[in-house]
Amino acid sequence: MSERIHATYWLETGDDPRRAADVIAGEQSSGTFVALPGETPELKARSGARVERLEILDTVDTPSLPGGMKSDVYTRCTLELSWPIENFGASLPNLMSTIAGNLFELRQVSGLRLTGLTLPPSFATAYAGPAFGIDGTRKLAGVAHGPLIGTIIKPSVGLSPEETAQQVRELVEGGIDFIKDDELQADGPHCPFDERVKAVMRVVNEHADRTGKKAMVAFNLTGDLDQMRRRHDLVLAHGGTCVMAVLNSVGLVGLHELRKHAQLPIHAHRAGWGYLSRSPELGWDYAPWQMIWRLAGADHLHVNGLRNKFSEADESVIAAARAVLAPVMPEAPMTAMPVFSSGQTGLQAADTYAALGRADLIHTAGGGIFGHPQGVAAGVEALREAWVAAIEGVPLDTHAERNPALRAALGFWK
Amino acid sequence: MSERIHATYWLETGDDPRRAADVIAGEQSSGTFVALPGETPELKARSGARVERLEILDTVDTPSLPGGMKSDVYTRCTLELSWPIENFGASLPNLMSTIAGNLFELRQVSGLRLTGLTLPPSFATAYAGPAFGIDGTRKLAGVAHGPLIGTIIKPSVGLSPEETAQQVRELVEGGIDFIKDDELQADGPHCPFDERVKAVMRVVNEHADRTGKKAMVAFNLTGDLDQMRRRHDLVLAHGGTCVMAVLNSVGLVGLHELRKHAQLPIHAHRAGWGYLSRSPELGWDYAPWQMIWRLAGADHLHVNGLRNKFSEADESVIAAARAVLAPVMPEAPMTAMPVFSSGQTGLQAADTYAALGRADLIHTAGGGIFGHPQGVAAGVEALREAWVAAIEGVPLDTHAERNPALRAALGFWK
Repeated sequence: MSERIHATYWLETGDDPRRAADVIAGEQSSGTFVALPGETPELKARSGARVERLEILDTVDTPSLPGGMKSDVYTRCTLELSWPIENFGASLPNLMSTIAGNLFELRQVSGLRLTGLTLPPSFATAYAGPAFGIDGTRKLAGVAHGPLIGTIIKPSVGLSPEETAQQVRELVEGGIDFIKDDELQADGPHCPFDERVKAVMRVVNEHADRTGKKAMVAFNLTGDLDQMRRRHDLVLAHGGTCVMAVLNSVGLVGLHELRKHAQLPIHAHRAGWGYLSRSPELGWDYAPWQMIWRLAGADHLHVNGLRNKFSEADESVIAAARAVLAPVMPEAPMTAMPVFSSGQTGLQAADTYAALGRADLIHTAGGGIFGHPQGVAAGVEALREAWVAAIEGVPLDTHAERNPALRAALGFWK
Repeated sequence: MSERIHATYWLETGDDPRRAADVIAGEQSSGTFVALPGETPELKARSGARVERLEILDTVDTPSLPGGMKSDVYTRCTLELSWPIENFGASLPNLMSTIAGNLFELRQVSGLRLTGLTLPPSFATAYAGPAFGIDGTRKLAGVAHGPLIGTIIKPSVGLSPEETAQQVRELVEGGIDFIKDDELQADGPHCPFDERVKAVMRVVNEHADRTGKKAMVAFNLTGDLDQMRRRHDLVLAHGGTCVMAVLNSVGLVGLHELRKHAQLPIHAHRAGWGYLSRSPELGWDYAPWQMIWRLAGADHLHVNGLRNKFSEADESVIAAARAVLAPVMPEAPMTAMPVFSSGQTGLQAADTYAALGRADLIHTAGGGIFGHPQGVAAGVEALREAWVAAIEGVPLDTHAERNPALRAALGFWK
């Protein structure tokens, strides 16, 4: 039996749904708009995409997206297609062209969203997946249980290397586990990457030498390939334990090459995710998208946060985090660590934990830590204690009675 | 004077438009959701994005995209932002994170589309752009004037290398200028890349030796970086004159690395463009998108075709083609060749030429060539003659009186 790739879509079509499904399957495999003399029954049986499932959901009378065929009724359905792996091999870039290629532009399509992906074992042979994942990250960060308590350097851009290091000093002295560059902070002349790494790691290393605790700092090395490799090596040489790359900015080949080169966990930022997902009737769900990046090597993946300051609903955030924690396939879990951020405080800990049933995650807060009236150390402690309460199933107010930092935090978090 | 990057957006917001513009500018530079002690006036003046222009277009009473802030009125406007290049340097990946990063997810945004981009000269110093462009492509293809007449191997997938070569034989004997793999055809076991290149180039080279005309074949080498480099070298070693990569599948680092390695023109496929563009209220216009890929090295860029079989309107197709033919910047034109495809015949030649005022393009037709009652050679000739008529300003019917192949084509094209 040949291996097959399965992709699931939410489809809206002005055509007969069965015909639309066949057109999509054809366009993405051996067919085209017109009957082809070369597309023999044997060829189609061997190479054609197969409609595995077509379930009608409902109908609407106006199309979600313009440009499609005109109709009085637009049918919404769940469509599952499958392809033989022989069509393109176990190749992530070519997988992309097939499951997320021209089909979005078809006239038969007035809405199309890629909602699910199941890959055969060959992909796990071809791609190594995260090198560190949850366990490796915990080891490097020295956090055996509970979430990594983290934050993001702010302002995003504009600080000098020394000003950045000064902020890092406050954070590591406050006991933070994880710090990241903002995704906008790269290698500009005001804050060159090399100077930033040297200044920050001087602080981190000094603190680690003194206390035994080395905070993990995700330096944003996003750039051209030579730059990313060189920057990675610099971070490594200065004792750093993490690098960060913006996935949509470097692309699949960029992340895959970084993974092959890297000796540190790759913190994967999803900036640009909005243009891939913000229309419910178009684009990508997070589950199939993050799976591709995990195969390519992402150790940490951003999932927004509950009650975030962006436009994403809580159920979407939780679905995304569950996807990151779910195995890529039974034969190769390739588990990565979800990263929660945006408007986060200890108030989201219990709900986040309840939804996931585990704390293998990075929880980053900015104002939720820096805003603490007793300072950064109390801010870190309060967020950590909020997670202790969540994991132990103790109400936050009750736990706060035993913890002054948490008690003080509840005032300004609310 | 510092160099600045300018990006233009179509914005829909439920907030006061001025406040929304400020929030977007802040989020994509030195600000965040809350006031930061570190964001001093000096820092903001140095590193903040600037609202250069905000023009109200109209208002609507329902938001285009869900998840944003609730309002009774949603204002649509043109927004132009600028950033100092010092924020991230002349780096295409970091440009992406900045102009097309988190901003799409903001609650202030109920619609956002990146419509324009102006880059300072530093980017042309950092990136070489297309190595061949129009002139280099014309030289390699031996086509001094008029469009390259092209086609795509069909069925897209499923043919063996020998069957592919057989189709190529028919095409080169018919006098075709350009042939491309389908974007779904990669390196599967039924049609391995190496065998395909060898079989096809044997035919192309034999024909070139005999006639002096060597058709340009764009072999789809999309894959991981090592694979792309190796495949490129194989094409080069066998006398091939073009390679093809799917941009959304390899990403910016992938294309840039291929450009650095390549000694052949890069035919850039835009499969997946639909998920970036199909919602008019979200994502990307083609003009800014293709500019980034040209800087990274794309020589040919797909633009769909007039009266195509997909969902794109003609005015969008022409805007895309004009963007590809327009200079990236006055100091560095980096002109690339637009590729027209999808349901194309000679009937689109005159309108395409009228809209562009030039024929520096690749015009690919499938059924429009293969369907010719007198065979492939007549199909190629008919399409070429349709362009002669278009360029000379002669009506197609009149020109057909002098040309039997064109005359016969008019019957089945219509």
